[in-house]
Amino acid sequence: MNNLNYFKRFYKWPVRISDIRKSGDAGIDSNKIHKVKGWVRNIRIQKNVSFIEVNDGSSVQGLQIVGDKDTFSNIKHGSAVEAEGNLMKGEGKNPQVEMQLKNIKLIGDCPNEFPLQPKHHTFEFLREIAHLRSRGNTAGALFRMRNESTQLIHQYFNKNGFINVHTPIITASDCEGGGEQFQVVSTLDNKSNKQPHFFGEPAYLTVSGQLEAEIFASSHSRVYTFGPTFRAEKSNTPRHLSEFWMIEPEIAFIDLNDNLDIAEDFLKYVINNLLINCKDDIEFFNKRIDTGLIERLKKTVDNKFIRLEYKDAINLLKESKEITQNSIEMGDDLQREHEKYITQHFGNVPVFIINWPKSIKPFYMRQDDSNPNVVSNMDLLVPEVGELIGGSIREERYDILLKNIQDLGMDQKTYEWYLDLRKYGSVPHGGFGLGFERFLQYVTGLQNIRDVIPIPRYQNYCKF
Amino acid sequence: MNNLNYFKRFYKWPVRISDIRKSGDAGIDSNKIHKVKGWVRNIRIQKNVSFIEVNDGSSVQGLQIVGDKDTFSNIKHGSAVEAEGNLMKGEGKNPQVEMQLKNIKLIGDCPNEFPLQPKHHTFEFLREIAHLRSRGNTAGALFRMRNESTQLIHQYFNKNGFINVHTPIITASDCEGGGEQFQVVSTLDNKSNKQPHFFGEPAYLTVSGQLEAEIFASSHSRVYTFGPTFRAEKSNTPRHLSEFWMIEPEIAFIDLNDNLDIAEDFLKYVINNLLINCKDDIEFFNKRIDTGLIERLKKTVDNKFIRLEYKDAINLLKESKEITQNSIEMGDDLQREHEKYITQHFGNVPVFIINWPKSIKPFYMRQDDSNPNVVSNMDLLVPEVGELIGGSIREERYDILLKNIQDLGMDQKTYEWYLDLRKYGSVPHGGFGLGFERFLQYVTGLQNIRDVIPIPRYQNYCKF
Repeated sequence: MNNLNYFKRFYKWPVRISDIRKSGDAGIDSNKIHKVKGWVRNIRIQKNVSFIEVNDGSSVQGLQIVGDKDTFSNIKHGSAVEAEGNLMKGEGKNPQVEMQLKNIKLIGDCPNEFPLQPKHHTFEFLREIAHLRSRGNTAGALFRMRNESTQLIHQYFNKNGFINVHTPIITASDCEGGGEQFQVVSTLDNKSNKQPHFFGEPAYLTVSGQLEAEIFASSHSRVYTFGPTFRAEKSNTPRHLSEFWMIEPEIAFIDLNDNLDIAEDFLKYVINNLLINCKDDIEFFNKRIDTGLIERLKKTVDNKFIRLEYKDAINLLKESKEITQNSIEMGDDLQREHEKYITQHFGNVPVFIINWPKSIKPFYMRQDDSNPNVVSNMDLLVPEVGELIGGSIREERYDILLKNIQDLGMDQKTYEWYLDLRKYGSVPHGGFGLGFERFLQYVTGLQNIRDVIPIPRYQNYCKF
Repeated sequence: MNNLNYFKRFYKWPVRISDIRKSGDAGIDSNKIHKVKGWVRNIRIQKNVSFIEVNDGSSVQGLQIVGDKDTFSNIKHGSAVEAEGNLMKGEGKNPQVEMQLKNIKLIGDCPNEFPLQPKHHTFEFLREIAHLRSRGNTAGALFRMRNESTQLIHQYFNKNGFINVHTPIITASDCEGGGEQFQVVSTLDNKSNKQPHFFGEPAYLTVSGQLEAEIFASSHSRVYTFGPTFRAEKSNTPRHLSEFWMIEPEIAFIDLNDNLDIAEDFLKYVINNLLINCKDDIEFFNKRIDTGLIERLKKTVDNKFIRLEYKDAINLLKESKEITQNSIEMGDDLQREHEKYITQHFGNVPVFIINWPKSIKPFYMRQDDSNPNVVSNMDLLVPEVGELIGGSIREERYDILLKNIQDLGMDQKTYEWYLDLRKYGSVPHGGFGLGFERFLQYVTGLQNIRDVIPIPRYQNYCKF
């Protein structure tokens, strides 16, 4: 039974229910009393016996606790309890470990008006009670998946010699050039109004840590960011948030093929380990949210991702009779309809579209050696979600980068430091960005991006 | 030599210099040619032979490369190179692995005006070239330590069943009640001015994720945040940043003693593993920055932290003849002079000050059962740095929390969701906050907080 005292220094702590469940038969020692603490999810009163399910957030299924008929008469759904008893194997086809109750203590009562009753709630309603929804099954499972994904992402990069870098959140530059940025002002300044800008110049919330990550790729070779990014988009859609998390590796001494290899290896590592480490939660999502989920994730891990030239993608789309709503020409960006068609065409596996027209891509992407109208970049399209990763090799040649900045009418002075990276020991380098919430939609099947982040932020919504 | 191909899928990649150094004798196979890529740090031309040191950011010492007299004649300090050759053991008292050069290729040249010349630079100057300073020894070592600390923090919590939660950066509430917050406005709104607030109400950058972390401690029992926090402080000191990172665990079902145990165990785990995993970098800091560093860190790991009641701390300070500048009375907050005296008094080990007066602490701290004027909280003072951790048990009783909010004249409506956590299955819970940059100052000895973050943000400074 040693494996249950996981957190050894804190022997007083209650046993985690996930540890009990994982230990299975091995965890059962009928002479020992165990203690669990958690919230009551289910109450069943039968003729001679009654049951409650206690959940401490460590797994989708709680621990079933068996008591006499009247034991749970003053325990309400949603209450917090402490329960002590012996563990035993339950009955039935797929027996689980249960607790034969010795003693129960009410820690925190729960009135009947508790909004999260044991019945079906819409996602819309759950978003209104985002401070309580994590006690439910779906959000409960999601936050475990989100945590496990976070851990695996750090593990992958750490194992492979990458250094995590916290690039600044407040910035004076604009990576994407889109302009849909939030501005940061000091409330103290507003009052006194003596100094118009706290930072001495207008300051914004970052839209990407890439430009700053390049600084550290130029000293530590392999780096990555994992931080919040912001867009003041007024798109009120299930695909956009004002605040979302991005993972952005940046690597020195690589070409586009390396970049593709790394992105593919990285995604497969995380998804493969999620399938193992979050088996119960993924099975829950597969059953309740998206019955094609496990098949799609296995397919992602088991198949080589398709690598398709942009020009071949356009030709494919132009020839297709299934593209009816959005006709497309060489030089155009892809629409949702096009993205869907492409992943379906290749049998619902991820597809990299590479080497896009320079004219529709940002200034920092590397111009192709043989074709100045093309840049060395990649967008990864995945089934259901669409674009999951965007990346490129960066322009490492001072003269070409300077010309890009000038041609686009950007403020050269703001980018002097960025140009410096090309002046002193410049190296070929590149990387990509993964939208963390898009990734979580992909691995859970949840349709609305507002349901995969603890507290969503979007237009007219800043609660909690 | 297998251990050198660390990143196996990417066999084309150059070998990391830290892997070569770690492999030591075992890595030497004189029949094999190895390739490294990095930046030139040192050039020494001798009579018959010449040397360059190449550094790829993976360790404080680079790889010494030995060539003929004229081999490096066109290689300048700061250039990026690719070098191929055989590895061999160098000479001297403490022999290191060197490379006997076969072939060298200049990847990126570096003009002589490169600001980071191999000579002493002041920290002030290095801050001005924050986009280049990470190529130097001190910042290079710091960012490896920062990364390793990040990894260890995630590992500690992951091992112990905590779930990482990304609490919102943009928020409408104010955890500390200090009011020194940055406001977030949409640049689009400014132009059209049709809608005064993008989020429908004034929105700010978070000063702490604690209140939101409590939501998830009430569903998943053990959670932690690791994210950026913001203060619009006008203190232009080496101890304050406008943007800094915090780690905030929040745990259900604990009391103050548990909270103290966890904070102590956590800090010791991270520091102990830093001493092992970052041995070379810590030795570098001990030699160049703070000769007492290693002794202090070992002392921190090897000794039980002192736990001192606030009232005993005040009596100690009042009785001391060494407190000359800031006299103190029961009920006062501690000044830097007091903090320093206390840690010195106990022999330069960390000291928890616990159970402070309610009147000088935030509304959410739990009122003591036996004394309503005291709250169950803790501040951890450490030598040199001062306050490193602040934490408390949170008020879990609805009536008392509501009264605190009302007594302080806070907007009850804003905190309705926070009160709800006490209405439905409320549990005793608590946690603490660790300022990540303060921690990095503690483990490196760096005096100025602006030198322990990739790109610092403070009043009148928003470069890069």
